[in-house]
Amino acid sequence: MPELRKDPILGRWVIISSERGKRPSDFALPQDRRKEGGFCPFDSGNEYTTPPEILAYRDNGTEANKPGWKLRVVPNKFPALQIEGALDRVGEGMFDKMNGIGAHEVIIETPDHDATLASMSPKAVEDVLWAYRDRIMDLKRDLRFRYALIFKNHGIIAGATLEHSHSQLIALPIVPKRVREEVDGALTYYKYKERCIFCDIVHQELDAGTRVVGENSEFAAIAPFAPRFPFETWILPKKHDSSFEDASPKQFVSLATMLQETLRRLDVVLENPAYNYILHTSPFREEDNEYYHWHIEIMPKLTKVAGFEWGSGFFINPTPPEEAARFLREARIVRP
Amino acid sequence: MPELRKDPILGRWVIISSERGKRPSDFALPQDRRKEGGFCPFDSGNEYTTPPEILAYRDNGTEANKPGWKLRVVPNKFPALQIEGALDRVGEGMFDKMNGIGAHEVIIETPDHDATLASMSPKAVEDVLWAYRDRIMDLKRDLRFRYALIFKNHGIIAGATLEHSHSQLIALPIVPKRVREEVDGALTYYKYKERCIFCDIVHQELDAGTRVVGENSEFAAIAPFAPRFPFETWILPKKHDSSFEDASPKQFVSLATMLQETLRRLDVVLENPAYNYILHTSPFREEDNEYYHWHIEIMPKLTKVAGFEWGSGFFINPTPPEEAARFLREARIVRP
Repeated sequence: MPELRKDPILGRWVIISSERGKRPSDFALPQDRRKEGGFCPFDSGNEYTTPPEILAYRDNGTEANKPGWKLRVVPNKFPALQIEGALDRVGEGMFDKMNGIGAHEVIIETPDHDATLASMSPKAVEDVLWAYRDRIMDLKRDLRFRYALIFKNHGIIAGATLEHSHSQLIALPIVPKRVREEVDGALTYYKYKERCIFCDIVHQELDAGTRVVGENSEFAAIAPFAPRFPFETWILPKKHDSSFEDASPKQFVSLATMLQETLRRLDVVLENPAYNYILHTSPFREEDNEYYHWHIEIMPKLTKVAGFEWGSGFFINPTPPEEAARFLREARIVRP
Repeated sequence: MPELRKDPILGRWVIISSERGKRPSDFALPQDRRKEGGFCPFDSGNEYTTPPEILAYRDNGTEANKPGWKLRVVPNKFPALQIEGALDRVGEGMFDKMNGIGAHEVIIETPDHDATLASMSPKAVEDVLWAYRDRIMDLKRDLRFRYALIFKNHGIIAGATLEHSHSQLIALPIVPKRVREEVDGALTYYKYKERCIFCDIVHQELDAGTRVVGENSEFAAIAPFAPRFPFETWILPKKHDSSFEDASPKQFVSLATMLQETLRRLDVVLENPAYNYILHTSPFREEDNEYYHWHIEIMPKLTKVAGFEWGSGFFINPTPPEEAARFLREARIVRP
């Protein structure tokens, strides 16, 4: 059983995932294990190699866990957390831990092994967003959970272990510290200004223009004022909305286009970089509020020169966001 | 001029280092640029290629910026911050920034190109610690500065751009958020318990033994209860002390041995891993207190499967610290 453990000084929880049980020798394995012997468990026809699907968007008349799907959601075969069991909080002397209850799911975004979010059809990207929403709505009903962390690792140096396009979802019995800080930071601003800080950011950035990467009817893509990473890009809804899952069908159409357009800009400017993106949305049961504003943060994985940032939390970024935004804005892309 | 910019939501400062001016094409450069054409600017005889030394431990009668040194401290040739100028805080609409005043120094730990902290003499490691102390004491007199961040990137995947053994120091006009949180977290515990949380951790860990990596007269090396990274190891003084620079000569002897012993354990178990370590010590002008406890945090750089942690601040660690500690404790090493 994995464990959630709390750092007593900082109050940060980490997952100690003993099921994955890495011994020292495991770290010496070659890093590139994406497609062993040409076999990919996410390809159409190989459904029997994954755990049974939780959700699928399929052609009419096709059978679960068989070909005929456009998108599948399956439990992670090597989950960081376990779905069964009651939450059990215990102490170990001065320390706090709980058993690692949670969900760890994989969103297989396409049956096409070579497609990426940048290259697939806009409708397929929209389906990915709907799958995020459907899974959040379902997991929210489980009262043990407080947050659903949705993220994508694209490319091996960004942590993807399989190259087939996919996202991941981790549902947690705690709100991660970084999420709590972001929500609380926004609340502090709201108490002072009676306005949403993200709405103010969107307005100031669209007015100034220097850090704008792209804009459409519903969304703005910007390089944030104080980015941790070169070419870090945020996509925010222009209209205030605290929770991703409350977005309208019209917004999902618009977001699919903006996400795809932004990824294409990154691909052109940075030559198909590895990247991570993370969906930032409100914790469960505090969804509807005036102060928080959901968004997506995309971080291309470029700098090796970032060793100590891991431990210090202090970031040095060699590329001013104004320059990054200009390169991305001026990139010649084919619009989705 | 580099800038310090504040994330308005989280309150985290980042350095935007435009002097280093990375354009997109720079990121496509090969990563391994450690010793161009066999030339190393940190080797003895090449002193003329670095900025003039700030501090050196040298043989009697040798001249500054010439051979004859055991250790040199020089300004970083590509500094993230600039030492000259007054602090100037300005707004940009809703955002806050200040000009990037600070020191960025390199501690060249040995004239021997191939030596590492694990392999050099214990006395040479002690000199490195004294150099850290001497530079902190000097920079503290500059009232513009609030913190000195001392860290080491060892190995290219940990961010070292030159393979010659060295550490870095960044003096900052702000206290980094992560440091502030750690100090404040320790203060919260102190207010509740009237004891130092790190002293309590050292006592509990040495009593239990399961997460102990090593111990000598003055120091304990432990795998922390909730580590972010596999084989993360902390070295803490057993006696309460809030600031590294107040350590006694006897403690520096003991720490040199413990640091070297711990690095040798990591080298044996993980086959000479890349690593980062960071010195955690009190901010300037709050050095002497009952609640904070300086220490060193060592993070071997092993997991590629860590993409989203960068952005989410949420960590999944596949190696329980009890297992990591056992491997390290039982490693057959030659004692320094």
